[in-house]
Amino acid sequence: MTQSRPTLAQLEQTDDFIGRHIGPAAADRQAMLESLNLSSLEELVERVVPRSILETRPLDLEEGRSEQQVLAELKTLAGRNKVYKSLIGMGYHGCHLPPVILRNVLENPGWYTAYTPYQPEISQGRLEALLNFQTMVMDLTGMELANASLLDEATAAAEAMGLCRRISRAKTDTFLVAADCHPQTLAVLGTRAEPMGIQVQVVAPEQLEGREAFGVLLQYPGSTGRLDPQLPERVARLRQQGVMVTVAADLLALTLLTPPGEFGADVVVGSTQRFGVPPGFGGPHAAYFATKEVHKRAVPGRLVGVTIDSEGRTAYRLALQTREQHIRREKATSNICTAQVLLAVIAGFYAAYHGPRGLTTIARRVHRLTAILAEGLKSLGHRVEPEHFFDTLTVATGERTEGILGSARDRGINLRRVDDTTVGISLDETVTRREILALWEAFAEGDIDLAVEELDARVADGLPVQLRRRSDFLTHPAFNRYHSETEMLRYLRRLMDRDIALDRAMIPLGSCTMKLNATTEMLPITWEGFAAIHPFVPPEQAQGYRELIRDLESWLAAITGFAAVSLQPNSGAQGEYAGLLVIRAYHRSRDEAHRNVCLIPSSAHGTNPASAQMAGMKVVVVKCDKAGNVDVADLRAQAEKHRDNLAALMVTYPSTHGVFEEAIREICEIVHANGGQIYMDGANLNALVGLCKPGQFGADVSHMNLHKTFCIPHGGGGPGVGPIGVAAHLAPFLPAHPFIGTDSGRIGPVAAAPWGSAGILAITWAYIRLMGRNGLPEASKTAILNANYIARRLEDHYPVLYTGPHGMVAHECIIDLRPIKERCGISVEDVAKRLIDYGFHAPTMSFPVAGTLMIEPTESESRQELDRFIEAMIAIRQEIRAVEEGRMDGEDNPLRNAPHTAASLAGEWRHPYSREQAVYPVARLRIDKYWPPVARADNVYGDRHLVCACPPMSEYQQA
Amino acid sequence: MTQSRPTLAQLEQTDDFIGRHIGPAAADRQAMLESLNLSSLEELVERVVPRSILETRPLDLEEGRSEQQVLAELKTLAGRNKVYKSLIGMGYHGCHLPPVILRNVLENPGWYTAYTPYQPEISQGRLEALLNFQTMVMDLTGMELANASLLDEATAAAEAMGLCRRISRAKTDTFLVAADCHPQTLAVLGTRAEPMGIQVQVVAPEQLEGREAFGVLLQYPGSTGRLDPQLPERVARLRQQGVMVTVAADLLALTLLTPPGEFGADVVVGSTQRFGVPPGFGGPHAAYFATKEVHKRAVPGRLVGVTIDSEGRTAYRLALQTREQHIRREKATSNICTAQVLLAVIAGFYAAYHGPRGLTTIARRVHRLTAILAEGLKSLGHRVEPEHFFDTLTVATGERTEGILGSARDRGINLRRVDDTTVGISLDETVTRREILALWEAFAEGDIDLAVEELDARVADGLPVQLRRRSDFLTHPAFNRYHSETEMLRYLRRLMDRDIALDRAMIPLGSCTMKLNATTEMLPITWEGFAAIHPFVPPEQAQGYRELIRDLESWLAAITGFAAVSLQPNSGAQGEYAGLLVIRAYHRSRDEAHRNVCLIPSSAHGTNPASAQMAGMKVVVVKCDKAGNVDVADLRAQAEKHRDNLAALMVTYPSTHGVFEEAIREICEIVHANGGQIYMDGANLNALVGLCKPGQFGADVSHMNLHKTFCIPHGGGGPGVGPIGVAAHLAPFLPAHPFIGTDSGRIGPVAAAPWGSAGILAITWAYIRLMGRNGLPEASKTAILNANYIARRLEDHYPVLYTGPHGMVAHECIIDLRPIKERCGISVEDVAKRLIDYGFHAPTMSFPVAGTLMIEPTESESRQELDRFIEAMIAIRQEIRAVEEGRMDGEDNPLRNAPHTAASLAGEWRHPYSREQAVYPVARLRIDKYWPPVARADNVYGDRHLVCACPPMSEYQQA
Repeated sequence: MTQSRPTLAQLEQTDDFIGRHIGPAAADRQAMLESLNLSSLEELVERVVPRSILETRPLDLEEGRSEQQVLAELKTLAGRNKVYKSLIGMGYHGCHLPPVILRNVLENPGWYTAYTPYQPEISQGRLEALLNFQTMVMDLTGMELANASLLDEATAAAEAMGLCRRISRAKTDTFLVAADCHPQTLAVLGTRAEPMGIQVQVVAPEQLEGREAFGVLLQYPGSTGRLDPQLPERVARLRQQGVMVTVAADLLALTLLTPPGEFGADVVVGSTQRFGVPPGFGGPHAAYFATKEVHKRAVPGRLVGVTIDSEGRTAYRLALQTREQHIRREKATSNICTAQVLLAVIAGFYAAYHGPRGLTTIARRVHRLTAILAEGLKSLGHRVEPEHFFDTLTVATGERTEGILGSARDRGINLRRVDDTTVGISLDETVTRREILALWEAFAEGDIDLAVEELDARVADGLPVQLRRRSDFLTHPAFNRYHSETEMLRYLRRLMDRDIALDRAMIPLGSCTMKLNATTEMLPITWEGFAAIHPFVPPEQAQGYRELIRDLESWLAAITGFAAVSLQPNSGAQGEYAGLLVIRAYHRSRDEAHRNVCLIPSSAHGTNPASAQMAGMKVVVVKCDKAGNVDVADLRAQAEKHRDNLAALMVTYPSTHGVFEEAIREICEIVHANGGQIYMDGANLNALVGLCKPGQFGADVSHMNLHKTFCIPHGGGGPGVGPIGVAAHLAPFLPAHPFIGTDSGRIGPVAAAPWGSAGILAITWAYIRLMGRNGLPEASKTAILNANYIARRLEDHYPVLYTGPHGMVAHECIIDLRPIKERCGISVEDVAKRLIDYGFHAPTMSFPVAGTLMIEPTESESRQELDRFIEAMIAIRQEIRAVEEGRMDGEDNPLRNAPHTAASLAGEWRHPYSREQAVYPVARLRIDKYWPPVARADNVYGDRHLVCACPPMSEYQQA
Repeated sequence: MTQSRPTLAQLEQTDDFIGRHIGPAAADRQAMLESLNLSSLEELVERVVPRSILETRPLDLEEGRSEQQVLAELKTLAGRNKVYKSLIGMGYHGCHLPPVILRNVLENPGWYTAYTPYQPEISQGRLEALLNFQTMVMDLTGMELANASLLDEATAAAEAMGLCRRISRAKTDTFLVAADCHPQTLAVLGTRAEPMGIQVQVVAPEQLEGREAFGVLLQYPGSTGRLDPQLPERVARLRQQGVMVTVAADLLALTLLTPPGEFGADVVVGSTQRFGVPPGFGGPHAAYFATKEVHKRAVPGRLVGVTIDSEGRTAYRLALQTREQHIRREKATSNICTAQVLLAVIAGFYAAYHGPRGLTTIARRVHRLTAILAEGLKSLGHRVEPEHFFDTLTVATGERTEGILGSARDRGINLRRVDDTTVGISLDETVTRREILALWEAFAEGDIDLAVEELDARVADGLPVQLRRRSDFLTHPAFNRYHSETEMLRYLRRLMDRDIALDRAMIPLGSCTMKLNATTEMLPITWEGFAAIHPFVPPEQAQGYRELIRDLESWLAAITGFAAVSLQPNSGAQGEYAGLLVIRAYHRSRDEAHRNVCLIPSSAHGTNPASAQMAGMKVVVVKCDKAGNVDVADLRAQAEKHRDNLAALMVTYPSTHGVFEEAIREICEIVHANGGQIYMDGANLNALVGLCKPGQFGADVSHMNLHKTFCIPHGGGGPGVGPIGVAAHLAPFLPAHPFIGTDSGRIGPVAAAPWGSAGILAITWAYIRLMGRNGLPEASKTAILNANYIARRLEDHYPVLYTGPHGMVAHECIIDLRPIKERCGISVEDVAKRLIDYGFHAPTMSFPVAGTLMIEPTESESRQELDRFIEAMIAIRQEIRAVEEGRMDGEDNPLRNAPHTAASLAGEWRHPYSREQAVYPVARLRIDKYWPPVARADNVYGDRHLVCACPPMSEYQQA
């Protein structure tokens, strides 16, 4: 017995997490390999990954660690960030996330693991939450239409600039920006304007009128805190001059101030961060974008609308999707395809929990403290600049500036260093009298003799009478019913229960990689040491973040084989855009500014052409062959044809068809030979990690979707994080940011914060640390195994499109429903909706090929879950066969009528198939059944009768 | 405008939480008062609470504070507890709660706000989880039957002693206890034995045989770590001598050791704490209790069993409830009515997540480290005492004892101070090589030259070959399917979704006070500073806890008007028992040991007589009058009759009938005049807080259910916390505990840990701090308002029993269904089950009066939720009327067939009423519908075919 006794090392289970992350147990993996006539994962990989790119060396990472070790390490890092009270402002504010929302939304997988609500019937909960968000934005801004959020205020302002450019008939390329806009917004506008041929002119706010321009951006209140009582008149005059007006507004201030919609603004943008979302060293937070109804087709991003379902119920769904890049490609309004759903949902619930009176009270209190603070500073002899203000003051501090900043820091408070002689202070809902006293002390040279109560009694408000809000807002019951914690808790549960997220079932979305978001990865993001850090704190207060960022950059570089990584882009599309700008800057640095042709295979994601267009490139489409691969001959022809102006090829690898193209090295060489750079779309990186490195086989730039391959959850449609890796020759061009110093040559910032959505990078850090050099390749191999297992089990039932030379797929597989559609009229959508009756979220529909389903199981799905899905797909095939063979009606059948609600069972049953067939087509559904809250949503009706705010309550009661 | 401007003070919202906790908004409260023809809450109180006891002074507490303030204060307190690695053992061990279980069970209101599963149809999720727990205990102990947990190991041992006493035919009152049992177990056994007339004899383990005794308790492994290779033979001989054998066993050790069931133990008890539950300075944790099938009717506590539902499905429910105190009263097997469900559920999931192999690996690793540690200590010259051991060593340290303890503390490690010359060390799954090295350093006098790997290679295991486990365990699929995080996450979600908890709907349980368990109250309990503290750490490491405990004792005293409070009892029943022992000790101290008669009104909770019996008292029942009040004349007669031996009256106030009896002062005076003490059952304290004080109107002792009135959640049937408050003359008798020094005169400990379930006291601390002097009375008033609103709205539909002189009820109301039953056969149970179809958990059934429902809404329910419930009750009344009037069948109607599953809709419909009537009797159910996973559970079948372990998987697949 002693002989066979395992050693301590064998008992350590430090690789325990790998088995937690990867779904199929060892015995299951073996059985699955056998079904593929393979004996090992290594053999599988040899059949799938071209030998020419397969890495033989292990990843340059440490071994995986245990969950406890990783949590302990992250605790140490969090402890190296110092939690000060940051009154820096600039669009980032301290706030209180109500604990009931923290625990039941931000920390609940029912919310954070949900996917983008493309399938409305299983997404009614988050769609309702987003409709609350849109209604909140519309009410507070006074606008007619708001989208479901954008990435950050700076990019929202850039999107507004783009919208104005598209709509305005003005014959000028000038866009005016008021000088008191936030500096990071100015910087991002600069980045975005240049490739579009727009000239940004920064002008003092009172000198904006009388200039030739197609649009203008104003900050309200100004970054300095200033409120201009003449603003409404000024806006009216600008609009009379044909200048479209965008206002970047603070939503909390708008509870007290006339909303921009009431003085004619064309677009209103801003951040909703202070509605309960932690600053998180820069993000993620939901920006908002509101405009007039007439511009609805020009709105970027997601828009939730109201429609009816096939049984006449009110149903929510994404509206006007024809605007979006996956449809319109380079003609889209924007390349944005991620919203900040989870954060928008939180901001909407924050408003619902406080209600109009609660929000107003918070705003009044913040303002009152500001007025008291200002008066105190004045009585201490300081010049407080804005005469009218909401929550922000600018103080002329002269040569005492550094002293005052330091003295505030000694008291645990960060202030804004506006310039050498000026300090800014922005108050927020977390500020108490204690901080006011501390600030007076910091500013005073000697003893202070000030009393809050006494000043409160005598100081008037600082809001100009002309700008006082008179209109009601948030009058809908959604903002007036859930003020007790019990009611809010149940509302959150009710909405969550309407949706399918990863905590209920596999979400086999091709290209979207819906893998486990492990709890250990998620725990740190709500720790104060990560959550409560303002993006512009002094570097010494963010040592933990900087260390984490350095680690992550180097680990991602090691994984991808690139020389350098930028974590700034806060979505995959943003990464594409940044990558293309880097390529553009590289060509310019070599005096080849004319290189502007971007080759894009016809199978590419719609974001590729949309990003290329934004980066000022001309899109040239390259054909694919019948096997779904890039047509190398056509590529060569196009590359040579555009040799003089060739800027780049954008290529997805493995391809969007789910195949490791054998020719990838050759493709890269052709483009390089013709002067172009290779942009590799990292959407499918999950098949590559630990097996091959884009930076080694020819790519010059690639983005990595941390929200797909690296475990940041999809959050119901965002946040995303899309860092880019670049080869050494491109490293000098990676995005700059005003806050960390502008390095000449670098491209300007593409996001508001220096490291984008830094607040969630700990998720990816944890994942890589947990899996390590041993776990990461195993995940990739298992992802490939799972996809091939599904393909093999389904191939007798549905044609599987696009396989490699050995008949294998990569990490996803495409099944073809076009022959079925032709034979009997059953469509991809019918199958997708029917899967809901079986308890599944549908795979990706009609991408990259119309009439197909693309299935990506990921490595986290167990064999039993794969089998459950396969069982459903086979059962559906049998249902289709019954239609094909005339045993079932061609129109009135379980597929066309899917999904079936519980309510439909209770009413009269007029279908030629039974209720059992409708809802319990396989036995296990009797034990575990998801009931969709609505039947099939009518998209056409919804787009024709566009309603993007909460419907009146009568709608709810009508049922 | 400036004039009307609110001041800063008015904007502070420090009382914001009061409005979050209390359900009805101000306008709703006003409307509800109007429906009662009242103008204010004060007027309401005057009509409900007898003037003679109404307090006019405000509570001696501070004003309520904001959630942020309270969290900050608790953070400070948590920081004053020092987190050391505690290797003290004695039944408490460090462990890792897998994050997926932490977040999705312990931190999820879907689990923690659930009620005891008396209504099986809405409790299948937690019942399945408890069945896992029972199966786990049975498998690991090798026993035939296990219950659904007990309060702690010490009381479980006492229950085992009680069972043996009841069952044994031995003619002796002697119970033997092996000397190497945990000291706190010994102490609790002492407390419990004495009133039962049992003599506890503590004997060296090897000298147990050949003595006259009805039972024996052994510790396995011993508290010193010792494993006796002869144990099986010893047990066999003891049993041959007619001594029943109870083994207190460590479940982790049992993965490697022969289970006691295999060598004949009659009872096996222990703690499951180390299966993922934080030590929490003593609790709560789930103890287990396993025995032979033949003793099933003698088992204390809850037992989950398998049965079928009315449609033939497998269904779980509580089995053999006829054993319990609410049925058998003083003849019950125990007074226990709370289990530690939430913790048992966690332990069961811990086992399911790790599975048999994972648990064994954990155990082997802990053992391996222990063997290495032992060898190292020996080579450092120490005498390590147990030759055979699992995870615990006892080291003879002689005069270096204090030095070694201190040296370990300097290295962040707590060891057990066994006595002046002996140190104990218990390893656990959190221990790493680092601690082993640190321990060697602490024990060494000079440099050490030891290497873990080297020792690992040469040291044999310390488990005796004779005791090596050979049998399989945890072979059921429940312990072998959920090893990936994704599978576990979905399993947790699936089970949670089967149940109704407070996060879905009002749970209007009379006497059970299912109020909001606010997130802010819950957050701190999983903070390391509270969770990771061993109950026997040196006092200086638990300063935060001690401060919190001092605060809480003084606040509870201020609220109840008592002189002193003990937080030790870890359930309400335990509080009753402790309170009665205090009364008993008081009488003894006055040489009145003969006082042993306990008067109990007929309306009392079953725990009252059961507790009195356990405390060695003789129960005499006092009548109630027609109005449900104590019959004062009968009370007087009984009190005078038993004057010479009168010990106490146990009285619930407000009464279990939900009325503030006017005569309460008189009742107390009568008992006092006859030499008795007043024990007030605090079950209904929620109606009193801030309005009147038991300590002021005559009670001498009272327990407070912190899990009812003071917001500790019910956890699906526990944990409970039942501190007692006592008048000054009883304070010297409050429970002692060996760990905090025995004060002569005090009663012995009633729980294993000095402050019982200290780990969750922060919940109550937070609640009181948040509500403060202003919020607490408002909660009581609103609870009374809500109950009266329901009573008023329902009184035209159902007779409301028992009101006070002004026709008002207290905080709950009883509606009488007996006339309905008589007229048409529809029973209380039918109405309760029909409420499930309306989405509600039923009110309390047939207590205190058979054939009635007792409804307690609590203050946390909003008017809209009350209206929803009232609407359901009225709709049900209309359904009953249809039966009464012959418009519906007397047998085949929606009430008798309730609850209706979704599956029943899909099949053939043979009922005379429609499917719509069955499942959508009111319109709003179409928007928000709970579907019970099973139809009505068959209790009789289940008790006749008792199965208390997971059924074979074929059961699951059969559907």
